[in-house]
Amino acid sequence: MAIRLTENRYGKSHVRLMKVERDGARHRVTDLTVDILLYGDFAAAYTEGDNSQVVPTDTMKNTVYVLARRQPIGAPEEFGLRLADHFLTRHAHVSRARIVISANPWQRLGEHAFERAAGRRTALIDRTRDHTSVEAGIADLIVLKTARSAFAGYLRDEYTTLKETRDRLFGTAVKADWTYHGTAHNFDQLWQAVRQTLLDVFAAHDSQGVQHTLHAMGEAVLQQFDAIEEIRLSMPNQHYLLADLSPFGLDNPNEVFVPTSEPFGLIEATLRR
Amino acid sequence: MAIRLTENRYGKSHVRLMKVERDGARHRVTDLTVDILLYGDFAAAYTEGDNSQVVPTDTMKNTVYVLARRQPIGAPEEFGLRLADHFLTRHAHVSRARIVISANPWQRLGEHAFERAAGRRTALIDRTRDHTSVEAGIADLIVLKTARSAFAGYLRDEYTTLKETRDRLFGTAVKADWTYHGTAHNFDQLWQAVRQTLLDVFAAHDSQGVQHTLHAMGEAVLQQFDAIEEIRLSMPNQHYLLADLSPFGLDNPNEVFVPTSEPFGLIEATLRR
Amino acid sequence: MAIRLTENRYGKSHVRLMKVERDGARHRVTDLTVDILLYGDFAAAYTEGDNSQVVPTDTMKNTVYVLARRQPIGAPEEFGLRLADHFLTRHAHVSRARIVISANPWQRLGEHAFERAAGRRTALIDRTRDHTSVEAGIADLIVLKTARSAFAGYLRDEYTTLKETRDRLFGTAVKADWTYHGTAHNFDQLWQAVRQTLLDVFAAHDSQGVQHTLHAMGEAVLQQFDAIEEIRLSMPNQHYLLADLSPFGLDNPNEVFVPTSEPFGLIEATLRR
Amino acid sequence: MAIRLTENRYGKSHVRLMKVERDGARHRVTDLTVDILLYGDFAAAYTEGDNSQVVPTDTMKNTVYVLARRQPIGAPEEFGLRLADHFLTRHAHVSRARIVISANPWQRLGEHAFERAAGRRTALIDRTRDHTSVEAGIADLIVLKTARSAFAGYLRDEYTTLKETRDRLFGTAVKADWTYHGTAHNFDQLWQAVRQTLLDVFAAHDSQGVQHTLHAMGEAVLQQFDAIEEIRLSMPNQHYLLADLSPFGLDNPNEVFVPTSEPFGLIEATLRR
Repeated sequence: MAIRLTENRYGKSHVRLMKVERDGARHRVTDLTVDILLYGDFAAAYTEGDNSQVVPTDTMKNTVYVLARRQPIGAPEEFGLRLADHFLTRHAHVSRARIVISANPWQRLGEHAFERAAGRRTALIDRTRDHTSVEAGIADLIVLKTARSAFAGYLRDEYTTLKETRDRLFGTAVKADWTYHGTAHNFDQLWQAVRQTLLDVFAAHDSQGVQHTLHAMGEAVLQQFDAIEEIRLSMPNQHYLLADLSPFGLDNPNEVFVPTSEPFGLIEATLRR
Repeated sequence: MAIRLTENRYGKSHVRLMKVERDGARHRVTDLTVDILLYGDFAAAYTEGDNSQVVPTDTMKNTVYVLARRQPIGAPEEFGLRLADHFLTRHAHVSRARIVISANPWQRLGEHAFERAAGRRTALIDRTRDHTSVEAGIADLIVLKTARSAFAGYLRDEYTTLKETRDRLFGTAVKADWTYHGTAHNFDQLWQAVRQTLLDVFAAHDSQGVQHTLHAMGEAVLQQFDAIEEIRLSMPNQHYLLADLSPFGLDNPNEVFVPTSEPFGLIEATLRR
Repeated sequence: MAIRLTENRYGKSHVRLMKVERDGARHRVTDLTVDILLYGDFAAAYTEGDNSQVVPTDTMKNTVYVLARRQPIGAPEEFGLRLADHFLTRHAHVSRARIVISANPWQRLGEHAFERAAGRRTALIDRTRDHTSVEAGIADLIVLKTARSAFAGYLRDEYTTLKETRDRLFGTAVKADWTYHGTAHNFDQLWQAVRQTLLDVFAAHDSQGVQHTLHAMGEAVLQQFDAIEEIRLSMPNQHYLLADLSPFGLDNPNEVFVPTSEPFGLIEATLRR
Repeated sequence: MAIRLTENRYGKSHVRLMKVERDGARHRVTDLTVDILLYGDFAAAYTEGDNSQVVPTDTMKNTVYVLARRQPIGAPEEFGLRLADHFLTRHAHVSRARIVISANPWQRLGEHAFERAAGRRTALIDRTRDHTSVEAGIADLIVLKTARSAFAGYLRDEYTTLKETRDRLFGTAVKADWTYHGTAHNFDQLWQAVRQTLLDVFAAHDSQGVQHTLHAMGEAVLQQFDAIEEIRLSMPNQHYLLADLSPFGLDNPNEVFVPTSEPFGLIEATLRR
């Protein structure tokens, strides 16, 4: 039976870019890591070693820096849209461009000094000649609640040893990605507002489990932001085990915990309007 | 417009297992990290906080250790099949189990002493009530060739600055995953043979580019192993830049290179018979 | 010539502790990772395999959780002092205890919800029967300034290719450790104030080089805090390379930079009053 | 009280170098990461921002590539000696050079193809105008023994819960550094032989504890290699916990273990002839 090349794609990953924009003494910094993947008519490079249709990944890297220079960089989503547009416009044999951007947050210390904050903002542009998808996201948003978190009433079988609890620590590193309707929004403002909504619901929710809170967080985002048509949430359950102090004649009224990094629960869902 | 929960799944990740099996003084160790994801009728946990159908992820963890004790562990693919089978058999409301296993390789130092080797072996079992998919893979296989590697004849545009070369260093960390026909094979023997084929082709190939060598590696695997129906390869191009010594009055006849970790090229393809 | 055991020490590392303290609905969390090293009369365990004087590292771990339960945890420095004191008091053959603590910062989202912030706070207690040293520190404080940073007038030799600059990006991950006089201070308040001083000087300084700014930061801390007798600073110079856009007919007036992670400069100094 | 700069040093870290040396079609690769620290008369750069005595770290990086080109690279220790010598010879105000080198091991796949192996080789050259110290080392040597490992007879106190065992898994990531007499040895051959000795003793030793085996390993190295005057060993005890299967009606005769990454024991010692 013949062997077929059924899918292929290639690009440049981890192109790092820092852009400084100045309004007099007041500076603004944009710190992005860009991944580019192109799809198209590249089969001959694989099957024949014929590179004549291959845009070198080094050229993709150069393109990032050129486009960053040509105009104000804007939101990560906007920069990604310009990058995707460039490759599709410039090269007729490119059928699809997928741009993933991770932005480091910097907090202002002064006019031209900054401190790196926690977490990351992400953007994904997936563009073909017919369709453009714009996604935004947040990663490494590490949160903890020390009340209003239960886990009980679950299914028990012969391998169940877990104890029910009405009061546990609930810690997670939220990863959220959402898809916008269309391609023109105030992306910076929306991102900040979605982040705040996720935090607010996490903090206030009477959680019956990670699934329950994850759903409430996603639902609130869809309820509040018409611009968003779908949200995907991934929330590891980073367990805090209650330390057993009974061998030492001590009780432990939910005070002393052992954080563990593995294993961890992993809860994921997609919500759509 | 109503909000719908369109997809959900959950499970336990990074369950670490070391099993020691003894044939007299001669020991054998199996060192696995297991991720379990279940799909099924779990919506009420998300929407209502009703956990009555939720198999706790703690129970999943216990199940790994119980199944590891009950019989010889076998190949990672076989252990994954038993795990997937357990969840589908035991719980009628589970519709799909996805088991990802990463195995650390240990080289024998003696009857009961071992040294950890480089790289990882992976397995993925994706099982529903109608279908079982068995994949195996290799990750972190870091290789380098210092001859028989060119990159020339590529497309040039206004952002191209890369120089053509007939003799470059070609370094990559191969990630390969392949899908087997059916579920019964000598998985250990096949895995070793596929690994050797990938290394042999990488070493011998007259490379016109990463795409070219990646294709040759995948093609060789499909040609030699009837049990495999599809292979997916992901090969970052870990660049080695020729050091520019001309400011110091020195040439550099492909001898002194600067390894770089970012940015890197990323080349991916799927081959199928 | 005889072989001698000239130094030995052992302990438990990465003991993770989360303590929740409640003032009604308002909770406070302390998230520490503790490393313990003991020195003393342990030679027979090494030379003879005689463990009779060995306090198991598992016991050290238990001790962390017991001491965390017995009283309010206080500042990391105070908890470290209690731990060191315990081992020296309880075991006559222990001559020295070295406790290293890393604290994760959590920002309050509400009465009992928190978000993990960037950076880490550290403490080191080194105690013998005669002397106690208390050090505090800050790690992973990532900062950037986009003005007031020059590097010029340096020594030139035959291997110098670097261009002088009056206006560069200066980015670093500050690591600072300082030694207190004595063992009784308001450690939490001092730590916050030292952190603020380091940030303020970094932001305002007219930097002639990393060495210059590092010294100004250390000097300001010693000037402002009588409780501190010595400070050690380690500041990697995380380079931002100006992107060369001349092949594309573009200038680059200090706007578009390529952040690099390696190689990096490393500048270190100790200041003492 | 006046503030004094009591110590300072600076340099370039993580300078990555790959050198290819060719004997016809047969190639040899040397893959080093180099850290350089200089000590000397640099105080004015700190206190005054006067850089006139500062050798830029960029120049140090260039020097690595120039020296790598000028002659066969030799052992990491030899390359480090040449680097240290360069800075001391070229700059009268440099009083001390400290060169740390980490070498990645590559196994041969063919005449000019290689696979990266596990572990790292290290070298440290510390040179002043009066004295040169040459150290070699091995890092990330991950080993495991499944028999001949006990831990019993240890000190018990009120916080002891650990059970004695005559048969446990003993896993560690050996870090060893040793100091040579003088500066001229067959460093490559010695390194391979020391590594083999460490592995042989680890595998064969009847271990009463990590301390016991660490000492036996260090002692064997000093006994067998006259060129070595001191060895320092650091061995984390990477715990494997016996899985408790009794809730499921199963025994566990030392077969099923849970590897844990934290906390871990840490055992360290220095042996000298």
